[in-house]
Amino acid sequence: MLQPPPAQPGMREDEVDTPALLIDLDRFEANLDLMAASIVGTGVKIRPHAKTHKCAVIAHRQIARGAVGQCVQKVGEAEALAWGGVPDILVSNEVVGASKLARLAALAGITRIAVCADDPGNVAAIEAAARDAGRRIDVLVEIDVGGGRCGVAPGSDAVALAQAIAASKYLRFGGLQAYHGRAQHMRTPELREAAIAQTVEDTRRTVEMLRQQGLACDIVGGAGTGTFNLEAHSGVFNELQAGSYCFMDADYGRNLDAAGQPVTTFAHSLFVLATVMSAPRPGIAVVDAGLKALATDAGMPLVWQRPDMKVVSLSDEHGKIEFASETASPKLGEKLRLVPGHCDPTVDRYDWYVGVRKGRVECLWPIVARGFNH
Amino acid sequence: MLQPPPAQPGMREDEVDTPALLIDLDRFEANLDLMAASIVGTGVKIRPHAKTHKCAVIAHRQIARGAVGQCVQKVGEAEALAWGGVPDILVSNEVVGASKLARLAALAGITRIAVCADDPGNVAAIEAAARDAGRRIDVLVEIDVGGGRCGVAPGSDAVALAQAIAASKYLRFGGLQAYHGRAQHMRTPELREAAIAQTVEDTRRTVEMLRQQGLACDIVGGAGTGTFNLEAHSGVFNELQAGSYCFMDADYGRNLDAAGQPVTTFAHSLFVLATVMSAPRPGIAVVDAGLKALATDAGMPLVWQRPDMKVVSLSDEHGKIEFASETASPKLGEKLRLVPGHCDPTVDRYDWYVGVRKGRVECLWPIVARGFNH
Repeated sequence: MLQPPPAQPGMREDEVDTPALLIDLDRFEANLDLMAASIVGTGVKIRPHAKTHKCAVIAHRQIARGAVGQCVQKVGEAEALAWGGVPDILVSNEVVGASKLARLAALAGITRIAVCADDPGNVAAIEAAARDAGRRIDVLVEIDVGGGRCGVAPGSDAVALAQAIAASKYLRFGGLQAYHGRAQHMRTPELREAAIAQTVEDTRRTVEMLRQQGLACDIVGGAGTGTFNLEAHSGVFNELQAGSYCFMDADYGRNLDAAGQPVTTFAHSLFVLATVMSAPRPGIAVVDAGLKALATDAGMPLVWQRPDMKVVSLSDEHGKIEFASETASPKLGEKLRLVPGHCDPTVDRYDWYVGVRKGRVECLWPIVARGFNH
Repeated sequence: MLQPPPAQPGMREDEVDTPALLIDLDRFEANLDLMAASIVGTGVKIRPHAKTHKCAVIAHRQIARGAVGQCVQKVGEAEALAWGGVPDILVSNEVVGASKLARLAALAGITRIAVCADDPGNVAAIEAAARDAGRRIDVLVEIDVGGGRCGVAPGSDAVALAQAIAASKYLRFGGLQAYHGRAQHMRTPELREAAIAQTVEDTRRTVEMLRQQGLACDIVGGAGTGTFNLEAHSGVFNELQAGSYCFMDADYGRNLDAAGQPVTTFAHSLFVLATVMSAPRPGIAVVDAGLKALATDAGMPLVWQRPDMKVVSLSDEHGKIEFASETASPKLGEKLRLVPGHCDPTVDRYDWYVGVRKGRVECLWPIVARGFNH
């Protein structure tokens, strides 16, 4: 079953049932506008990552502001977005297994689809799926540009794989996937700049080697919310894959700028609304949002605009908050906005966004790819 | 949308689409049988906690083995189970807010329902909901027996709240909720025994004070998988609320017995099946299960029966596994069973259990309360 929507348009925010996933629409729209403005004149396009939002409504709002399409990590996410009318989808990840590849090839009938590969055997499997479906599929070569996760080595290994793709009559070489995930959360600009300088160098060298073999890269894609400005001005990348910029989270809030201050380019726009369900002792409040409502892989949530309050622990369905005794203690039933530690896996726990503006619910948007991690 | 089922009955386990949530049925049934056998002769009943499994099918299988009903933490979970025919449900938690309480009172028309309270104002709100619905609701007083979370202090505070409940014509005093959550994961038997000795003493004293005021406790409930034997033999508790025993997880696997060995009373029966999606370098494999497929609040998952393999990091959709170079490296497409660090929030990410026995899929069970955390 799906969760019933926790709100109706027109309600006051404090009437929303909890826990609920709120989008502050003014802040959210400002984030989308700012990203669109940031890349004007660079010649680089944004292909936002839908693993953050998992929502066709948001994808279309990004595309309306100039995004070239969407990235996803999973075939299930690609299906949910394609069924929601998104016209251009890159699976920025490897897809392994005949049934998944058959689903991917089927999607090529209703949307432009591309996928990444880092293994010759996998390229052969993608080719078989494309042949069986009678579709031609774009395949990008993923190179490991410092993340130490998936991807072949930059340089000759990448060229060899690209040649295997280009030699297939059912596939088309689509370019390079060159994402450095770890760099997004490096705390100082010096660390981020050093990491992406190497990423850019590895990518530039590989693009040039491909060019010498007659292989052009339609897409040279990568970058996230933490480093997108660096890739945007690299002269090599032509697509940015930032996702979190639309929402932000507590973890991104810990990235620092050159002055040692938190980077505030984008604003927190995503919140988990929670209710105080128990206030048994002075200095303690327990809210109805716990491990099932909030991802903790990047630490505890923050209490929005209440620096005097600290979430000290979460259990399955409880969040325990401590606050200085001199502050106004929250009342039983009071609602608090929490800033998730990590936005992507928090979103994946909910079926609905509740869009709020000026204290009122304006819209409900379904998170159509919630759980579509297959 | 719901996730489509990742399997069909009759498939081989290695044909199941991934990531998928597997129940090893032989181990699971042995766990249910063992719990039923463990409490024979104690006079104590088991009311398993459905926040672990969120599944009406499992609830009915526990009830068929003598469970008196189910515990839940949320009204949404109570709804999902009541709609699935579960006849006796205790919300072992506070419920705050008029709309939630109206939903709770409505459920009393189709199932036996009880709820906990730790605040006089909340008792008045439950009373108003019961009156409006024309239903009588059982209310238990939650006492803080060491968890430091919700609950009034044992003793006179609890008696005063029980008297307020008993004085209402729309409510019925149902007993005490006395759960010590932190004690479940204390690593040594000495620590667990000391914690629960205090819990039992606080509870015994409160039960006696209530008795002196003419208030009998139908339910004296608490205990979890880590300590249930202690409460079962306390002479005070009459209902056990263990949940994780049916599945177990990596965290419970770190509890030790008197000999300093891991407690192996119950068997791991819950697994996330994952596929190797990239094997780019010797000693490294990347699987298609990450932060959205596995809860990490209690640490990384384990690779089942592969002590030579270690999950070193998870990102949204990737799990990175390192293994000693001398071991057989997993092949691209190979499927691995992972033992979740924490079962409850892992289950809440999935719409389906895939029940397997002797390498074949035997059944698909819907996780009807997935996401029903409201």
